[in-house]
Amino acid sequence: MNNQLILKAARGEKVDRTPVWIMRQAGRILPEYRGLRKKVKDFKELVKTPELACEVTLQPVEILGVDAAIIFSDILVIPEAMGLPYEMKEQFGPFFEKTIATQSDIDNLRIASEEDLSYVTDAIKLVKSALNGKVPLIGFAGAPWTVLSYMIEGQGSKTFSTARKFLYTKPELSHQLLEKITESTINYLKAQIEAGADMLQLFDSWAGILSPDQYREFGIPYIEKICSSLGEDTPMIVFAKGANFALKELSALNCDVIGIDWNMEIANVRAQVPNKTLQGNLDPALLYSDTAKVAAATTSMLNTFGPDRHIANLGHGVYPDTPLDSVKAFINTVKEHRFE
Amino acid sequence: MNNQLILKAARGEKVDRTPVWIMRQAGRILPEYRGLRKKVKDFKELVKTPELACEVTLQPVEILGVDAAIIFSDILVIPEAMGLPYEMKEQFGPFFEKTIATQSDIDNLRIASEEDLSYVTDAIKLVKSALNGKVPLIGFAGAPWTVLSYMIEGQGSKTFSTARKFLYTKPELSHQLLEKITESTINYLKAQIEAGADMLQLFDSWAGILSPDQYREFGIPYIEKICSSLGEDTPMIVFAKGANFALKELSALNCDVIGIDWNMEIANVRAQVPNKTLQGNLDPALLYSDTAKVAAATTSMLNTFGPDRHIANLGHGVYPDTPLDSVKAFINTVKEHRFE
Repeated sequence: MNNQLILKAARGEKVDRTPVWIMRQAGRILPEYRGLRKKVKDFKELVKTPELACEVTLQPVEILGVDAAIIFSDILVIPEAMGLPYEMKEQFGPFFEKTIATQSDIDNLRIASEEDLSYVTDAIKLVKSALNGKVPLIGFAGAPWTVLSYMIEGQGSKTFSTARKFLYTKPELSHQLLEKITESTINYLKAQIEAGADMLQLFDSWAGILSPDQYREFGIPYIEKICSSLGEDTPMIVFAKGANFALKELSALNCDVIGIDWNMEIANVRAQVPNKTLQGNLDPALLYSDTAKVAAATTSMLNTFGPDRHIANLGHGVYPDTPLDSVKAFINTVKEHRFE
Repeated sequence: MNNQLILKAARGEKVDRTPVWIMRQAGRILPEYRGLRKKVKDFKELVKTPELACEVTLQPVEILGVDAAIIFSDILVIPEAMGLPYEMKEQFGPFFEKTIATQSDIDNLRIASEEDLSYVTDAIKLVKSALNGKVPLIGFAGAPWTVLSYMIEGQGSKTFSTARKFLYTKPELSHQLLEKITESTINYLKAQIEAGADMLQLFDSWAGILSPDQYREFGIPYIEKICSSLGEDTPMIVFAKGANFALKELSALNCDVIGIDWNMEIANVRAQVPNKTLQGNLDPALLYSDTAKVAAATTSMLNTFGPDRHIANLGHGVYPDTPLDSVKAFINTVKEHRFE
């Protein structure tokens, strides 16, 4: 591997400069992505066609010069591989025709295997071959609570109150379902490593909507089970968005990196998670500013994190209508920054 | 006033038991509300007709036995009084046909006066007369950042990225608009006090979506200005949802009570906000549980807050489809609880 910055930073080793990538870097911010997207039926055709997923994955490495690729996919491939298919509706987001409500719904789900998701591992193999050691490739999955929330709600939600109701009123079914999602995710991530993923990220996008007690019961233990099932060779990033209340529990996870969102105070997180590399956390909305302001905010962020144990990123996925010049200003500022 | 529990608790005085009310207690959880709602054209007819707003305000006092009434209204009456009307669309939420984007848009807004909102103060007078000292009446308004976010976005949003973009790219216009909203809100809350409101709450529903730096610049100072403009006689509750990162700043506000949501750890907030009464914070989704579980969780919450400086409430508005038995179990558990 030519560029090992992100792997070294993840393991807490000294690096010459802070590595940088961007959540949702492969996607609508790039004209090249939008061009390709127009030629296919829908988002899922890109996800399910290894050659296309490979092409999209490589775009930001070439165009933006980021220090890692992340495989182009979706966290909801897991429910689909378990037997619960979904559509990605334009201007709406994910939609499941059937959702999970009963014991028999859960019994009817299978544990996803490597074969169910071979379109992802095939894409990973193509990307690894095309990258030829240029930068590491990040694989990923949704964390079990976030995946469950979509399987119960059937779509996005401001409150996810149906999913939260399920946890309160059907705790045993919730644990059964989380267990099945967890087993599926472990199979999936092991297959990603086998196919060549150099690093992994778990996205717990809806962590912050649970009470601390619920997150300790229904969130953290399943993340821990995944982290502890994958061996020590592949660094793991856990991004539990909004989980300010769970920093102590996150700090105790068997993972290398904690992703933090833009609402978190860096110094506070450093104090509570002293043993891990942190990833983040520029406000994605800040990239609507002009490039001078982006550069200044990025420099300030870098100095607050300091030279060690930091992977520069945004605090959430980049917004699709972000000006590309600002995205480049963010990345180039990180790459040119030198600590005094 | 016969029942002064909530006013005493707000001021940090000893109380015989913890007072309790529920955000959105006047609304769709009550069959009596749903009955009345069917007889009118829309939500706004209820808000704008003092006799109807009064009737709705009184319902939970009679049916649920809460320790305070809160005037039935909406935070978006302020933009409307400033010259930016909105609709409340069924199954959608608020919608503004025109939104704010430019200097001239802001120049065209007026500072709302008492007269623009006399339908609210008239409703307050009717409620006060009908209550006849039974329980205190809470008035309220949206905090300036949350009100601005709707004026820019024109509707609800998962990210409020347009409003956040406005703060980053047009900071001067943002401050001008926040200033106008703040002046309008001060006029409005003074009129509510004049009409008889015994206590006030500022709802900053979207506080948690801003970065700490942005909230310190665009959120906190305007809340402070409102708090400091209203005198010391009427206790003020500030509910900045999701602002875990701003507890220090909230603690320094010139107000009596800080509302906390269900994602916050009570002990952590007590430690960082030792000088104020706290309001909250049961997860509204917990009320989907059976009444025994609701009672147990409520008792646990009361014991964690302790007997002093606590106003029992949920961590956010009650969900419309919450079983009424659970709502009653929450309220009755608080009212029957005695600390050892």
